[in-house]
Amino acid sequence: MAQLPTVDDVAQRAGVSRQTVSNVLNSPDIVRDTTRERVQAAIAELGYRPHASARRLRTRQSSMIGVRLDPIINGISGSILDRYLHALTARADERGMRITLFTAADHEAEIEQYKRLRDGADVDAFVVTSTSYNDPRIEWLARERIPFVAFGRPWGSEKVDDPDRLWVDVDGQAGTRMATEHLLGRGHRRIAFLGWPTGSGTGDDRRSGWESAMTAALSLDPFALAALSLETVESVPKARAAVEGLLRAGRGVEAIVCASDSLALGAMMAVREAGLPHLPVFGFDNTPVAQAVGLSSVDQRLDDVAAGTFELLMGATGRMMLPHGGASGDDPRHRLITPQLVVRRSSHLELVEEAGGTTSGDRERTEKEQS
Amino acid sequence: MAQLPTVDDVAQRAGVSRQTVSNVLNSPDIVRDTTRERVQAAIAELGYRPHASARRLRTRQSSMIGVRLDPIINGISGSILDRYLHALTARADERGMRITLFTAADHEAEIEQYKRLRDGADVDAFVVTSTSYNDPRIEWLARERIPFVAFGRPWGSEKVDDPDRLWVDVDGQAGTRMATEHLLGRGHRRIAFLGWPTGSGTGDDRRSGWESAMTAALSLDPFALAALSLETVESVPKARAAVEGLLRAGRGVEAIVCASDSLALGAMMAVREAGLPHLPVFGFDNTPVAQAVGLSSVDQRLDDVAAGTFELLMGATGRMMLPHGGASGDDPRHRLITPQLVVRRSSHLELVEEAGGTTSGDRERTEKEQS
Repeated sequence: MAQLPTVDDVAQRAGVSRQTVSNVLNSPDIVRDTTRERVQAAIAELGYRPHASARRLRTRQSSMIGVRLDPIINGISGSILDRYLHALTARADERGMRITLFTAADHEAEIEQYKRLRDGADVDAFVVTSTSYNDPRIEWLARERIPFVAFGRPWGSEKVDDPDRLWVDVDGQAGTRMATEHLLGRGHRRIAFLGWPTGSGTGDDRRSGWESAMTAALSLDPFALAALSLETVESVPKARAAVEGLLRAGRGVEAIVCASDSLALGAMMAVREAGLPHLPVFGFDNTPVAQAVGLSSVDQRLDDVAAGTFELLMGATGRMMLPHGGASGDDPRHRLITPQLVVRRSSHLELVEEAGGTTSGDRERTEKEQS
Repeated sequence: MAQLPTVDDVAQRAGVSRQTVSNVLNSPDIVRDTTRERVQAAIAELGYRPHASARRLRTRQSSMIGVRLDPIINGISGSILDRYLHALTARADERGMRITLFTAADHEAEIEQYKRLRDGADVDAFVVTSTSYNDPRIEWLARERIPFVAFGRPWGSEKVDDPDRLWVDVDGQAGTRMATEHLLGRGHRRIAFLGWPTGSGTGDDRRSGWESAMTAALSLDPFALAALSLETVESVPKARAAVEGLLRAGRGVEAIVCASDSLALGAMMAVREAGLPHLPVFGFDNTPVAQAVGLSSVDQRLDDVAAGTFELLMGATGRMMLPHGGASGDDPRHRLITPQLVVRRSSHLELVEEAGGTTSGDRERTEKEQS
């Protein structure tokens, strides 16, 4: 039965008092040579190490950044937050900082965790993900003056430019606009959009990029545009059913831009089944699934999102930024990352499209566009 | 420009010495009321908090478990380690422990990180993932007597039962055996296996489950069995090409069991293209992709893997287990988790199989089998 050895274990093994062990650890010069050697031998034999926190205090090696991690990963696009976490960990490592994880069932439980981690001094700052309208976590962190950065804008409020709210986000509007413009550039006109029901900040933002590109390029009346716009919840079979309906309606759809890779996978199934395998479909998030099935998508550039997170967190001086902290206006308080298109025409997609076609290796093209 | 305030900032704001601030924090009774109130007001205004490590030492709230997280997630099955991390975080929370993340390019770099985290006392124990033959990380941790658990057996060595090496793993052999037996039970006989090239512990283990089920049920000679066994690297198009070749060879294959969901996705594409949409394909890992495209798969039960990890780490007494720690033999030193089948026949798969078929909701059946 193995357990972490204690000072008492060392003292017993060496046949000395606890105080003598403590002296060997903290002031070895005052201990007689033979006693010190006996204690050191016991320490080595038992593998004793001083308590972590005591050592941490002496060495002060790293700052801890707290990040919530949900117990369950939802669907295909749930991997986005995991990829962000991977990128955050790499960036933290570069700065000698560490990521600490915790779970929470809802916003209230997450705030309780913030308190616990703050009071236990386990964490020096937080990264907040999956933000919502008037997010109570953001309000609490700002009020308690705890350094934090949100991945996600404070949607639909005047707080987008609030200097107390540091945030980094991906410009979803730019992503769907770029995808739509790419399709327009290839001669397509009747480009549909498959998105989530109105009311989510991210979803509305992604729809608006398609709208603005279509409106700028074509003289479509609002009814014609609305007839090309579909809504469904995040579900592969529901997306497929929605696109089946659209294709049956005979509106001459030539391409489809989607708010996520899950929706795009459903759309891909519907267009193949309808005998329209060449009808282009764009996803969003560039998940491993998109890569695997040869689906064009919009990449969020999560490495840049993670880098932006740390730049905001540390400020210009490399020390952690507090809310209400002077707010001179000189420091940028947010980062909006422009995503990039990944245009695919993978060999296996071509083969599904044209049975017996040539098997060229995977081809993949990335269009970097700067805002 | 905001920065975390220091004791000096508080002292300056309150017009007192550093020592007085320290007294207010540690021995408030010895400070005059008016002075104490002035210092407390300055602390509140500035949002000052004592250094994390000093507080941590006083409060000693949590143990830290170190886990490596790679910068890049590889392919569809790369999400397995993420799902394990989610489950570990939830289990750690339940025990008042925390997960701390770090990165490393290779085993050597990972051992350097272990040293740094141990010496900085940032971490009390490690969970080691993606283990390999004679893994140097395991050797180092055992030698340094640092508590750890490996997710992954010490493959191909006599160390599987070594009491110094605590490990938890998923019984891949049982998983592919269950999948093969399920297909045999439905009347299929010529069941192929699509796996990785020989030489990986996990891959060989998964192949052996198919082999043992086939050998037990059928009187196939070794050549007939070998003719049903395919090898390819982890790649959707390569898997598809391999299965295309198998189907062209006219061996009357009736079903395919695969070593991963990526391989199974490629196999699914090949069987559909060959006009054999009813030919059953089994994946392994039960990734979000399998769920999305209606692919049967083997679920690793990562919640149970994470629970097993903590049971091993903490031992019977709830204190961390050290290597070389008594090894009475009473405590189990490893956990082998039996996975479970997830048999799917999702509506969208049926529709792809039979154009114009009924759209029933997703159906999913889980077969729990205990070893």
